[in-house]
Amino acid sequence: MRPQIVLFGDSITEQSFRSGGWGASLADTYSRKADVLVRGYGGYNTRWALFLLHHLFPVDSSKPPVAVTIFFGANDAALKGRTSERQHVPVEEYKENLRKIVQHLKECSPTMLIVLITPPPVDEEGRKQYAKSLYGEKAMELPERTNEMAGVYARQCVELAKDLEIRYVDLWSTMQKAEGWQKIFLSDGLHLTPEGNAVVHQEVTRVFSEAWLSAAEMPYDFPHHSEIHGNDPEKAFQQLCI
Amino acid sequence: MRPQIVLFGDSITEQSFRSGGWGASLADTYSRKADVLVRGYGGYNTRWALFLLHHLFPVDSSKPPVAVTIFFGANDAALKGRTSERQHVPVEEYKENLRKIVQHLKECSPTMLIVLITPPPVDEEGRKQYAKSLYGEKAMELPERTNEMAGVYARQCVELAKDLEIRYVDLWSTMQKAEGWQKIFLSDGLHLTPEGNAVVHQEVTRVFSEAWLSAAEMPYDFPHHSEIHGNDPEKAFQQLCI
Repeated sequence: MRPQIVLFGDSITEQSFRSGGWGASLADTYSRKADVLVRGYGGYNTRWALFLLHHLFPVDSSKPPVAVTIFFGANDAALKGRTSERQHVPVEEYKENLRKIVQHLKECSPTMLIVLITPPPVDEEGRKQYAKSLYGEKAMELPERTNEMAGVYARQCVELAKDLEIRYVDLWSTMQKAEGWQKIFLSDGLHLTPEGNAVVHQEVTRVFSEAWLSAAEMPYDFPHHSEIHGNDPEKAFQQLCI
Repeated sequence: MRPQIVLFGDSITEQSFRSGGWGASLADTYSRKADVLVRGYGGYNTRWALFLLHHLFPVDSSKPPVAVTIFFGANDAALKGRTSERQHVPVEEYKENLRKIVQHLKECSPTMLIVLITPPPVDEEGRKQYAKSLYGEKAMELPERTNEMAGVYARQCVELAKDLEIRYVDLWSTMQKAEGWQKIFLSDGLHLTPEGNAVVHQEVTRVFSEAWLSAAEMPYDFPHHSEIHGNDPEKAFQQLCI
């Protein structure tokens, strides 16, 4: 009955229902108007995401989501030869994988609102501190992710969105406009603080609204309680009951 | 594909995806295992909830939710002759309405895990302060809800759960065990602070787990990223692809 918004991505999507998370905030924004479903897979890159695609979004679904956010790249951009090498995907392949995901979703529904989100910026100092907190002095000195490399992936993501004429959030650039973004928006140099989550929520809501999915313009699913008369409640529900 | 947990209730359910909310926390607890859908209707009592029942939970659904929380009573218990009189439902009718909701859900699915949640306690002083903050000195001196009356409704809710042999959370009693519950758990004498939300999340998770819906015992929907081999990702997904 209610339209569905699906959040497809890696850990930054999977964790988006933690306290202050952008997914939960989005669910609250679309409260009584759309359901927000999380399809976040911590540690996943776009190569692995392709294996899930047909399971999560079957082409023959009678009720595909009205909107999907695609939020990968943080793991694809992990550097070769470093501790997270296993997750690395070359940038050309990352772009092609994103293209395949978008094409598949368009096959599911040509009217679906698809929003690409770039990986966030990386605070290398924050990553180093995080590694030390886990592994002490054994932590590798060389970063497993760099902000520069995240930027390379982010640019390809934006380029693809422009190429395919779909909406996007350039999170990598947006976050870096704020002074002190490293600590304000990132909790461990990569994942989001509540403030970082607020940026994603704000950007996704803005892009949704600029398209056609504005919560303010969507009807409530049932009458607001102030429209229900104490002695004659049937009246407010009459249309539903016909 | 994924089992659904539905939260059916009034504003305390509707607001459960705000920062620190119990609904969002529940979605996080069941991340990659079940979807949590909010069906919260601010201001609604059980009488009005009955109008929604067949729309929200059609009897002929091929995929009914595996679990539903029913969380009403805060509005039913609004006092007659006071400012929220319109929402008042006599306690006998409240109990019968809850019974009808439970019976309907059992018709939808005899295996559904149904959890009744009592209204929270009421801090009359907090309600008065809240009314004054809205209406100034024009605010009515007499409370529109009392803790004693909320307790009457809570007891009937618990009695019904025992009568029907279904699970319940006695939130009214549980919260009052903590010293200072009035300010710790309630933001305006009725709605929940993040700490109050944490109590609901903890209690619902406990009751779900004691039944058979323990997140820890449910399988992940897809392989954990650590099970995926960098050079041979197909292997981890083989079972899915057959």
